[in-house]
Amino acid sequence: MKNFTSVEDINDLQSMIKKALEIKENPLAEPNKGKAKTIGLVFLNSSLRTRLSSQIAAQNLGLNVLILNASQEAWNLEFADGAVMNSGTVEHVKDAVEVLNQYCDIIAVRCFARMQNKEDDVNESILSQFLKYAKVPVISLESATRHPLQSFADCITITENWPFDRLTMNRKPKVVLTWAPHIKPIAHAVANSFAEWMQNMEVDLVIANPEGYDLDPKFVKNTPVFHDQNEALKDADFVYVKNWSSFEDYAAIPEVKGNWMLTQEKLKFTREAKVMHCLPVRRNVELSDEVMDSENSIIYQQAKNRIFSAQTVFSEILDELSS
Amino acid sequence: MKNFTSVEDINDLQSMIKKALEIKENPLAEPNKGKAKTIGLVFLNSSLRTRLSSQIAAQNLGLNVLILNASQEAWNLEFADGAVMNSGTVEHVKDAVEVLNQYCDIIAVRCFARMQNKEDDVNESILSQFLKYAKVPVISLESATRHPLQSFADCITITENWPFDRLTMNRKPKVVLTWAPHIKPIAHAVANSFAEWMQNMEVDLVIANPEGYDLDPKFVKNTPVFHDQNEALKDADFVYVKNWSSFEDYAAIPEVKGNWMLTQEKLKFTREAKVMHCLPVRRNVELSDEVMDSENSIIYQQAKNRIFSAQTVFSEILDELSS
Amino acid sequence: MKNFTSVEDINDLQSMIKKALEIKENPLAEPNKGKAKTIGLVFLNSSLRTRLSSQIAAQNLGLNVLILNASQEAWNLEFADGAVMNSGTVEHVKDAVEVLNQYCDIIAVRCFARMQNKEDDVNESILSQFLKYAKVPVISLESATRHPLQSFADCITITENWPFDRLTMNRKPKVVLTWAPHIKPIAHAVANSFAEWMQNMEVDLVIANPEGYDLDPKFVKNTPVFHDQNEALKDADFVYVKNWSSFEDYAAIPEVKGNWMLTQEKLKFTREAKVMHCLPVRRNVELSDEVMDSENSIIYQQAKNRIFSAQTVFSEILDELSS
Repeated sequence: MKNFTSVEDINDLQSMIKKALEIKENPLAEPNKGKAKTIGLVFLNSSLRTRLSSQIAAQNLGLNVLILNASQEAWNLEFADGAVMNSGTVEHVKDAVEVLNQYCDIIAVRCFARMQNKEDDVNESILSQFLKYAKVPVISLESATRHPLQSFADCITITENWPFDRLTMNRKPKVVLTWAPHIKPIAHAVANSFAEWMQNMEVDLVIANPEGYDLDPKFVKNTPVFHDQNEALKDADFVYVKNWSSFEDYAAIPEVKGNWMLTQEKLKFTREAKVMHCLPVRRNVELSDEVMDSENSIIYQQAKNRIFSAQTVFSEILDELSS
Repeated sequence: MKNFTSVEDINDLQSMIKKALEIKENPLAEPNKGKAKTIGLVFLNSSLRTRLSSQIAAQNLGLNVLILNASQEAWNLEFADGAVMNSGTVEHVKDAVEVLNQYCDIIAVRCFARMQNKEDDVNESILSQFLKYAKVPVISLESATRHPLQSFADCITITENWPFDRLTMNRKPKVVLTWAPHIKPIAHAVANSFAEWMQNMEVDLVIANPEGYDLDPKFVKNTPVFHDQNEALKDADFVYVKNWSSFEDYAAIPEVKGNWMLTQEKLKFTREAKVMHCLPVRRNVELSDEVMDSENSIIYQQAKNRIFSAQTVFSEILDELSS
Repeated sequence: MKNFTSVEDINDLQSMIKKALEIKENPLAEPNKGKAKTIGLVFLNSSLRTRLSSQIAAQNLGLNVLILNASQEAWNLEFADGAVMNSGTVEHVKDAVEVLNQYCDIIAVRCFARMQNKEDDVNESILSQFLKYAKVPVISLESATRHPLQSFADCITITENWPFDRLTMNRKPKVVLTWAPHIKPIAHAVANSFAEWMQNMEVDLVIANPEGYDLDPKFVKNTPVFHDQNEALKDADFVYVKNWSSFEDYAAIPEVKGNWMLTQEKLKFTREAKVMHCLPVRRNVELSDEVMDSENSIIYQQAKNRIFSAQTVFSEILDELSS
């Protein structure tokens, strides 16, 4: 694995999941694997789970960790090639990345969609610059269109709840990715990425969202899309709850009719579905307290698996570096 | 020790102080005690001493340290159970703490009084949520009503200056906790906590503060309170200087007559008292430069003892975790 | 070496450079040299290279690292002795430094010029307070008038490109420190410091800047100053690009005639000079993309050498501490 920014960077998802589950069994099995190597964790945006789980994963492997809260601690970055930098930006991403090349064996970066210009976000105007200028492996800690470490943790979590060898279940689970209400425009990264990874899992994926909220067709592909949430939820084994803004009318939040918040009532349509969310979640807006705190929720399990998702990816990258 | 948020969590203060003094003699005696364990230091507020001394203490024990400046680096937390999160808060403390449960073996948190609502602060509206949802030990790095790691360091410092076996001093020292001027409303945590811990030490404690500034009776208990600072200072062996706002008229700062700033002149009433302060201190407002920089001050010794206060508590918690 | 704040703290620059080049060959040769010792990295200002290279250097030597973003994470510092602290500052630098004395074996601090009062900056009003109150060695991570770790890295980089024993070059290299355009008032530290260190190297240094931009004579000494950039660049072997504001009319930015941005066209006057810059650089303002991205640039090599500059200094300080 040279970089890790989407499911495309994985050769064999099932074997990656198996490796992650082995690491979860014994996270400290290779305490010197990253010895004398340095990972730089660069945050252009807020982070709790990604920040902490990446540090733990790196420490478990003996990697040195450098954390850079780029906006607060360093310099305001310019992303446009050829820019005449006579305004608010102080350092070009090209130069920042070249310096990180000198200092780090692995660069990990969080760079959310800026939600201002559709083309910029769709083209990953920030991550693409890191990839262009990096001479060491780049790991996405969530970019404009994808959150692959989250999606990989989601695959691990679904596998734990629906094992490959679960003989009693001679069918694929039904997984519903459902839109949920929010109060402001939210990026598409988690939803896109979840769709992309589920399409590589042995599951039946459907997407439910209000009209006007269809995801980028590039990520939806031939996944069935329902505009009626109740219909989509029918017989679901897993329900993944997430808000996103309009893709077509980029970053708009058109009015939605009906109540899309996931409630215990709605779960009755499902086969006692497991409920998932990447966190942070707005309680009683995206889903109800009763769902969040129910036995159905495997949301904290997802959060824990962020450690093993990251550790598996770091481990694969370290294998590549020493090969 | 399951949690550490007040003197109530200590079984035997004198033996804890002895342990701390042993650790101070040889801080690196147990470099692997915390091996493969992780402490999360969560800061909702500013910190210098607590931040650095906790890191040093954890490193001395071989603990992995995760630092989270929650407000700047992660998400704005909601503390009200049942809240419909359709406003400024992005993540519920319940979910943040559940994630920390997954990532850490010990959670330490700094959560100052917000000074807006008396009941909220008195009831520890933030710390209580951490305690409610944590499944791992919780250590207070200062909460709305207490600063126990500071108070424990204060006990260590007083003991160093008035040893248990100091035969020549066949009396208990007189300790005066005196209010000092400030320019804005300050929380009660350090003062409350100092009173609480001194009531468990072999000292004669008195409190001096202007009228209108009496501390919460729950913490004062039967400690004598003087509204005349000079009278209180008489024959003092230790003078602990600290500002706090009104408790009764919560967070108000009623006008004060006379000069309450501790000066060399006022120290003449004492038995060449040692002067203490938790820092940061506003020089020439709370106390004069001459007092701060005099031989009487043991303020930096207090600051140094923050390391051994924290290390003793972490060590006790680690004992509990491995038992 | 007791402190490291200017070239004056170095006994023998050439042997320091040789040591740095040895460390660069094998950065992990002394992984326990700093064991059980702690360096505090205190940032009063933004930092990317200094922040990361110092951490790497410290980790390479086995030092414990404490990082304090003083303004954001701790308290607003007062620098004036005798101040009555009844305004915006919360902790006096004297007290902060005394606490760092208790916690750290080495204090490193970044404290930029505040560009408000010439006398304050010239007298190093902040760094001088750290030096006054520190009882452990102090390392400057850039102060009001100097950036010695950068300058030392510059010396290492020039040596790599013009080796001491380069027999074919029986002459000293010509080094031009040239002013470059910017959009706002920039401090003199890097330029002053580069001049100061070059005056201790076997090079022919000249300075080029527009009229009104002459550096402090204390740093210029008898270095030739040109107000015609093209003339200065003639036959240069190294061109160091940097903006600074007026020293005489302190922090002003008088209008400049002509184009001072370094371009490929201007490099034609030189002997295919190597181009240097401390970063961050404003592309197409200070120098053109074509120069920045040309073979002539040794700017990223400079950035990498920041690690070995820091590690050499930390190593010397550790020698002093254990002697």
